[in-house]
Amino acid sequence: MTKTSPAGGKSGHQARASIGARRNPASQAAILDAAEAILREEGLAGFSIEAVARRARAGKPTIYRWWPSRAALILEVYQRFKQAVGFPDTGALRTDLIAFLSNNLVGFWQSGMCGTVFRSVIAEAQTTPEAAAALAAYESARRRDATLMIERAKARGEVTAQTNSLLVVDLLVAFAWHRLLNGRLAETPADIEAVADLLIAGMQKPPASA
Amino acid sequence: MTKTSPAGGKSGHQARASIGARRNPASQAAILDAAEAILREEGLAGFSIEAVARRARAGKPTIYRWWPSRAALILEVYQRFKQAVGFPDTGALRTDLIAFLSNNLVGFWQSGMCGTVFRSVIAEAQTTPEAAAALAAYESARRRDATLMIERAKARGEVTAQTNSLLVVDLLVAFAWHRLLNGRLAETPADIEAVADLLIAGMQKPPASA
Repeated sequence: MTKTSPAGGKSGHQARASIGARRNPASQAAILDAAEAILREEGLAGFSIEAVARRARAGKPTIYRWWPSRAALILEVYQRFKQAVGFPDTGALRTDLIAFLSNNLVGFWQSGMCGTVFRSVIAEAQTTPEAAAALAAYESARRRDATLMIERAKARGEVTAQTNSLLVVDLLVAFAWHRLLNGRLAETPADIEAVADLLIAGMQKPPASA
Repeated sequence: MTKTSPAGGKSGHQARASIGARRNPASQAAILDAAEAILREEGLAGFSIEAVARRARAGKPTIYRWWPSRAALILEVYQRFKQAVGFPDTGALRTDLIAFLSNNLVGFWQSGMCGTVFRSVIAEAQTTPEAAAALAAYESARRRDATLMIERAKARGEVTAQTNSLLVVDLLVAFAWHRLLNGRLAETPADIEAVADLLIAGMQKPPASA
């Protein structure tokens, strides 16, 4: 699916598994490995909880106990890949934001089937409450981590201290989502610097209400 | 409500077809009225081309000739609602952008079922090429119209002439989409002024590369 090797993603994932204290790490990893293999070999069309259960030699109820929906399981495989891409920390906000948009979002989605997989999760979240909850939890954790880029820039005095970090992260992520969902990723790298510059200029002026 | 047989629909369809490739306004309106009524009364769950054909006493092939997918037809009903909301032209960019986000996007989606309907179109566009094409055409037309807000601000000298209007519109629309698709519309009105102020401050500084 992307740059990470399946084995490399696995151990990192187990260290992070905080969602279910009751998950058995070995079976969990086996299920995620099976899910990842099916995604790689057959794509989304061949992906079902049944197929994953068969390949992982696990019971469907076991899978459903840990992942309440097909989208939740797909999202966790997606997260394993994404963990290989750390948040940028280059020492300057401009290069951080450009790297974030390029490597964590647009470029990541352009590699392998990551973009297609994430689009399908977003689509399923529009009609399935369990998928929506899984996506919301994922997004919420990611946006908190991403705000560190802005907070470091505040500490360095690059932007005004009144900057709403969460809102800026939302704008960056939203921009990338919109391009992904409209099938416009290919034209997006050319716009990344302009987006970074526009938002940084915006963050340099204290809000009128402050 | 009379049930139209496939044969009956077909002859009606052929009679209309003789007019040419252009849509027959009367049948078109009847189909859109039927589609709107079904959406209002039964919601998305009850919405199918078959149900619309039955209610409009039209043939399914007629509908499919004009709207290549369920999503395309839903999107056109959605557009009829949206036409009632004109683009703001208040004489100042800040109030234009706030009105655009509030009335044309966030507030519009919060009214009735508009948000739910648009979410379903976006979801369908992720898996169905015909839906993706319909959504792309819609978005493309809308974003061109929306850039007029920015162009007028340029002409008034409110923002730098180097501002990339299309990119700013993308950021505004993307922000709203992201909140819609994450089920976060309710918290969004509180952020609208901050988004407008951030982007306007960004547009007031000429790009470094200019």
